[in-house]
Amino acid sequence: MERKRAIVLLSGGIDSAVCGAIARREGFEVTALTFSYGQRHAVEVARAREVAFALGVARHHIVTIDLASVGGSVLTGPGAVPCDREDPASGPIPPTYVPARNTIFLAYALAWADAAGATDVFIGVNSVDWSGYPDCRPEFIEAMQRVACAGTKAGAEGRAPAIRAPLVSMRKAEIIRLACSLGVDLSLTVSCYQADAEGRACGRCDSCVLRKRGFRDAGIADPTRYR
Amino acid sequence: MERKRAIVLLSGGIDSAVCGAIARREGFEVTALTFSYGQRHAVEVARAREVAFALGVARHHIVTIDLASVGGSVLTGPGAVPCDREDPASGPIPPTYVPARNTIFLAYALAWADAAGATDVFIGVNSVDWSGYPDCRPEFIEAMQRVACAGTKAGAEGRAPAIRAPLVSMRKAEIIRLACSLGVDLSLTVSCYQADAEGRACGRCDSCVLRKRGFRDAGIADPTRYR
Repeated sequence: MERKRAIVLLSGGIDSAVCGAIARREGFEVTALTFSYGQRHAVEVARAREVAFALGVARHHIVTIDLASVGGSVLTGPGAVPCDREDPASGPIPPTYVPARNTIFLAYALAWADAAGATDVFIGVNSVDWSGYPDCRPEFIEAMQRVACAGTKAGAEGRAPAIRAPLVSMRKAEIIRLACSLGVDLSLTVSCYQADAEGRACGRCDSCVLRKRGFRDAGIADPTRYR
Repeated sequence: MERKRAIVLLSGGIDSAVCGAIARREGFEVTALTFSYGQRHAVEVARAREVAFALGVARHHIVTIDLASVGGSVLTGPGAVPCDREDPASGPIPPTYVPARNTIFLAYALAWADAAGATDVFIGVNSVDWSGYPDCRPEFIEAMQRVACAGTKAGAEGRAPAIRAPLVSMRKAEIIRLACSLGVDLSLTVSCYQADAEGRACGRCDSCVLRKRGFRDAGIADPTRYR
């Protein structure tokens, strides 16, 4: 019997690495997709390579797309990354939101799934310890599932890939504990929005704040290198 | 008052040109998006430039993405384009389907809409005189509308862009008549899946069969150059 296949969106951060480990534990042959989209923290692409290797994925594609020319985000253009916010989920959608980024990523994942016959697509979105991005919410995942059913060949044939967001309702501390139980080497991951070329984190952006707190609440030593 | 903005997906073919003309007639400032995605009929990108100029769009972005490496279609890889089919809509989804292509195109359109504050996104899909592609059906457009509502900043703020597919239920002949009434120069457009570098059509692929029949049924002279 042929091995079941999954597409895993892999960013180089904690959540997607855990998704990859879940997919591997479930016995999937994994195709990992990482996007070099013009993000200021381009080092995450290199980290995603290391994570993919550690996970033992079958294939890892780095997809180069240009979201900088779309604009609308401080992650791909000028403007300050918010720092030292106590509660990143409060207030309006922050300027680190990248317009329709997860829609684009999942669209590509559906293309790869349709072409390769993958039955599952994993995305590490989270809407608990998060920055309030609309494209990380359960209702967004449900909408993309409808797209998978209506807009792909597999879907039209009644075998749409399942879009899976296993971390969507978990606290960051729980995700970190899960990572450890799955043997994910979190020292490979980088979360910082303004990590330097060596992957050293600022410790102050929303992503760093949430990551730091997650390790603290999990009672697990934080392997992050801060500058 | 600021002019209302629309994103129009422009392929270089008839249907998207008509969508562009509808958007212009409705008074939109139009940003046209055309994808150079590795299609064998790359001449359509050059034709899209001419159509965009003729429509008087405000901006035209050619977005280069690599769908050839995804595979799964004879439009981006090896394999024969089906020819001389009497009824392109019959039978299974043909090998000219490009996996999740319209999902990817609309995802980008939502990104541009979110960044630019566009209120409408136009796509020229059609599910009457068509090739049976899943991502041209009304249910796919409805699913993408949910994504626009759930997954974008504008959507989260209660002002999701409207995804408009004004041609979805029209016959090709009706679309051609509408094009003429809107003053669209259809001689600029190219539909053929295997058009040569000068834009000359094969006259035999599904897209040519539907286009030819459309002109014939509309009683309008076909300006297409066949080789």
